[in-house]
Amino acid sequence: FNLLTNPCFAESPNFIIMLMDDMGWGDLGVFGEPNKETPNLDKMAAEGMLFPDFYSANPLCSPSRAALLSGRLPIRNGFYTTNAHARNSYTPQIIVGGIPDEEILLPELLQKVGYRSKIIGKWHLGHRPQFHPLKHGFDEWFGSPNCHFGPYDDKTTPNIPVYRDTEMIGRYYEEFPINKNGESNLTQIFIQEAVSFIQNQSSKGQPFFLYWAVDATHEPLYASGPFLGTSRRGLYGDAVRELDYGVGVILQKLKSLNIDKNTFAFFSSDNGAATYAKTDGGSNGPFLCGKQTTFEGGVREPSIAWWTGKIQPGQVSHQVGSLMDLYTTLVNLAGADVPKDRVIDGIDLSDVLFSNQTFDRPLFYYRGNELMAVRLGIYKAHLWTWTNSIQEYNQGIDFCPGEEIENVTTHEQVNQSSLPLLFHIGRDFGEKYIIKPNSVEYKMVMPKIIAAVENHKANLVPGIPQLNLCDDAVMNWSPPGCEKLNKCLKAPPSKPYKCPWPH
Amino acid sequence: FNLLTNPCFAESPNFIIMLMDDMGWGDLGVFGEPNKETPNLDKMAAEGMLFPDFYSANPLCSPSRAALLSGRLPIRNGFYTTNAHARNSYTPQIIVGGIPDEEILLPELLQKVGYRSKIIGKWHLGHRPQFHPLKHGFDEWFGSPNCHFGPYDDKTTPNIPVYRDTEMIGRYYEEFPINKNGESNLTQIFIQEAVSFIQNQSSKGQPFFLYWAVDATHEPLYASGPFLGTSRRGLYGDAVRELDYGVGVILQKLKSLNIDKNTFAFFSSDNGAATYAKTDGGSNGPFLCGKQTTFEGGVREPSIAWWTGKIQPGQVSHQVGSLMDLYTTLVNLAGADVPKDRVIDGIDLSDVLFSNQTFDRPLFYYRGNELMAVRLGIYKAHLWTWTNSIQEYNQGIDFCPGEEIENVTTHEQVNQSSLPLLFHIGRDFGEKYIIKPNSVEYKMVMPKIIAAVENHKANLVPGIPQLNLCDDAVMNWSPPGCEKLNKCLKAPPSKPYKCPWPH
Ligand SMILES: [Ca+2]
Ligand SMILES: [Ca+2]
Repeated sequence: FNLLTNPCFAESPNFIIMLMDDMGWGDLGVFGEPNKETPNLDKMAAEGMLFPDFYSANPLCSPSRAALLSGRLPIRNGFYTTNAHARNSYTPQIIVGGIPDEEILLPELLQKVGYRSKIIGKWHLGHRPQFHPLKHGFDEWFGSPNCHFGPYDDKTTPNIPVYRDTEMIGRYYEEFPINKNGESNLTQIFIQEAVSFIQNQSSKGQPFFLYWAVDATHEPLYASGPFLGTSRRGLYGDAVRELDYGVGVILQKLKSLNIDKNTFAFFSSDNGAATYAKTDGGSNGPFLCGKQTTFEGGVREPSIAWWTGKIQPGQVSHQVGSLMDLYTTLVNLAGADVPKDRVIDGIDLSDVLFSNQTFDRPLFYYRGNELMAVRLGIYKAHLWTWTNSIQEYNQGIDFCPGEEIENVTTHEQVNQSSLPLLFHIGRDFGEKYIIKPNSVEYKMVMPKIIAAVENHKANLVPGIPQLNLCDDAVMNWSPPGCEKLNKCLKAPPSKPYKCPWPH
Repeated sequence: FNLLTNPCFAESPNFIIMLMDDMGWGDLGVFGEPNKETPNLDKMAAEGMLFPDFYSANPLCSPSRAALLSGRLPIRNGFYTTNAHARNSYTPQIIVGGIPDEEILLPELLQKVGYRSKIIGKWHLGHRPQFHPLKHGFDEWFGSPNCHFGPYDDKTTPNIPVYRDTEMIGRYYEEFPINKNGESNLTQIFIQEAVSFIQNQSSKGQPFFLYWAVDATHEPLYASGPFLGTSRRGLYGDAVRELDYGVGVILQKLKSLNIDKNTFAFFSSDNGAATYAKTDGGSNGPFLCGKQTTFEGGVREPSIAWWTGKIQPGQVSHQVGSLMDLYTTLVNLAGADVPKDRVIDGIDLSDVLFSNQTFDRPLFYYRGNELMAVRLGIYKAHLWTWTNSIQEYNQGIDFCPGEEIENVTTHEQVNQSSLPLLFHIGRDFGEKYIIKPNSVEYKMVMPKIIAAVENHKANLVPGIPQLNLCDDAVMNWSPPGCEKLNKCLKAPPSKPYKCPWPH
């Protein structure tokens, strides 16, 4: 599939990836949220293609986002840790590592064929200078390198900077407040940034890639004044409603500029809802557990594809899809070349999007350096099971609140690979009923999964782990631009240590 | 609201209640079933009004259905037992009781204003002669008085009869087979019966009430040949797909006869999905537990209202509704009179349906003779908690598989009424996070709920319990019409005993 040879695409299409943060599969009306508070997303689905079987590459922010932008599993692109076995890791501001230069990110490839790319919101692929998004293919940035945790005291810990392009223009909780009651106008700013970028690119007639990586549904939750208190779901719902509103504004902007017929928009989330956050987290619908786990609740994402005139309205695709597929699909749609010198895990979804075809393909779920689970067809096998340690659990950190499946939601790391746990996630999407190993069904299915795992492992070259080292000295003390604002802080001496990833 | 005084309704509208059996809230695509296999129901919702907050009056078949047709809680109409505290009871063929003559059923009232009513499928309000639906207002019947359990040997237990009007025309597993692999053409017959009745009434120009009480999603599950093996969900999904197909056929028939503008159709289910049936049961989506319990999974029903030209398409109502409301609403729409000599629990939903208004009202959840829970506004309080006994649970009967909430999904009957368990089911629809009794929220909300409970109890006159006595002699040995078919069986001597309701 190539633009130049396909007469359907007279010009390079624009791309918008709307990536939510910790939003769950069950948070959209169209995916069954009972309060039905996402009219714009439901409309997007009605006008486009709904993907109920779409997954993130990892149950945590940074590895998921690194995989999306590199088209490769975290185990390949280095977004994992070897400090301990099967541990989730990410990029807090004490992290030393980030996205390796060797990875070729989506905007780098698009840049080569004339695109201009902007990231709005959370980057999360490393905050030190060499990891800056403008050094990895993006042309513009409004947002922050890390999560909006805080407020900090700017003494032991600096507040997270907000960048415009190469320089910081303020910090969260300072120039960009998030009040204790959850009030913040950040989503409104992110919406405005998106609208302006789209407007500018449309005026210039230059194809664009907008990566709208908003984060109001990640703790600490926030919403702007007009949305506060408007949801039946509390502050989490207020945040969802505002993001839903933003989706509506962006799609409407495309229509009013008459570029909706030349713009492919994709909505999804970076990982499952943070069920351990209780009512400050979202809903994973009928799926088991949430963020941090490789059960369905941790990795199945609410996903919608939209392209007026190209994607027929009202469709549902049961393609087993991955956010990594957006890499391959967008590169091909842009007429650029997918790198041939490395394994790319994403597949081209063009025939799924435009002809509603479905392809068999395995999906591999890692937690840190361990392959935990595999989905193939309608089945899912767990090679390892783990939620978190019993010590953490006893402290009240529960990744599966109210849910407990014997031998499945284990509090020890259990190696199940000699007799993997098999689930039919069409009839048992809650991963509750283990298929008996002596059943005909198990004996029919498991060899295919084992073969897929063996093939995967035989061809696997793990990347150098990037998330092993932490150091207080690398925090956002003095980001570029801090001098102009008189907001440079003094870093402590460097004292690197192995990051303690608890789960 | 009265037909005679409202010029909008030139003629008496037709009514169709499509009542599923043990289908769960989460079984419809529009309510988030991930396999998205209900295109006709999803279309019905898109053309009508979706009710995510609609409830059955009871978590079990018989009491739920008795409440729907009488407009009154089972505690009033007698569909409960006093054999033990807070026990679910129903009408197996050993039951002696049934719907009391004193209850005035919906079709009785409609009959008075010129309607012809037909019940297709499961009656479940008693199978002895005095309880026959044609003695309680229905003019036609195709179906059976009890669940389609079996096959039986016709010696210790007779197979369940299938009636046409006053007489039996065969028995399940005999003239009306349900094969071991789940193949049966019963749903197709029920669809055909509905289409013929609608056609006949349309030809005659007589207003009708069709009560389509199909049961393919109740164990033992069944589907016809063309649907077997077509779902991603196994036999349960095959049954859902065939019922969804039936809904499509019926609504299309109304359109092709051009009576859709004069027909109010309502889709719902009699109780939550039977989670204890594992993958032979349906899905309650994100809700807790299922059938047999007063948690949301036991009583919240997938509900859709549809009326071309009268109900605006694409609406969602958050009215806290009950199947009992259909009684009051239909009686009023027909221009008949709601009985004034008794308490009717159903409210008139006309302003909800036609103007999307919302009314505050409490809903009371009984299990047998005990008030277990109350919903008021967005809150739900549990006065008693119970799933089933630890003995039953240890035998593998689990009403909440994989789910366990401390002090909530209890295996003892726990009287919580001195400090009721409070949940905000807008933000916590899974009933997982108990609101602390010393919180401001609890102190604001609970007095209102207590007041509603006290008011309810002060005005409560329990009916004479109908479901206490069992007797092998009353089984369907020789239903009317058996002589013609040479299918009369010999009843054993009468030996009444107190039915042992285990949970
Ligand atoms: Ca995240
Ligand atoms: Ca039932």
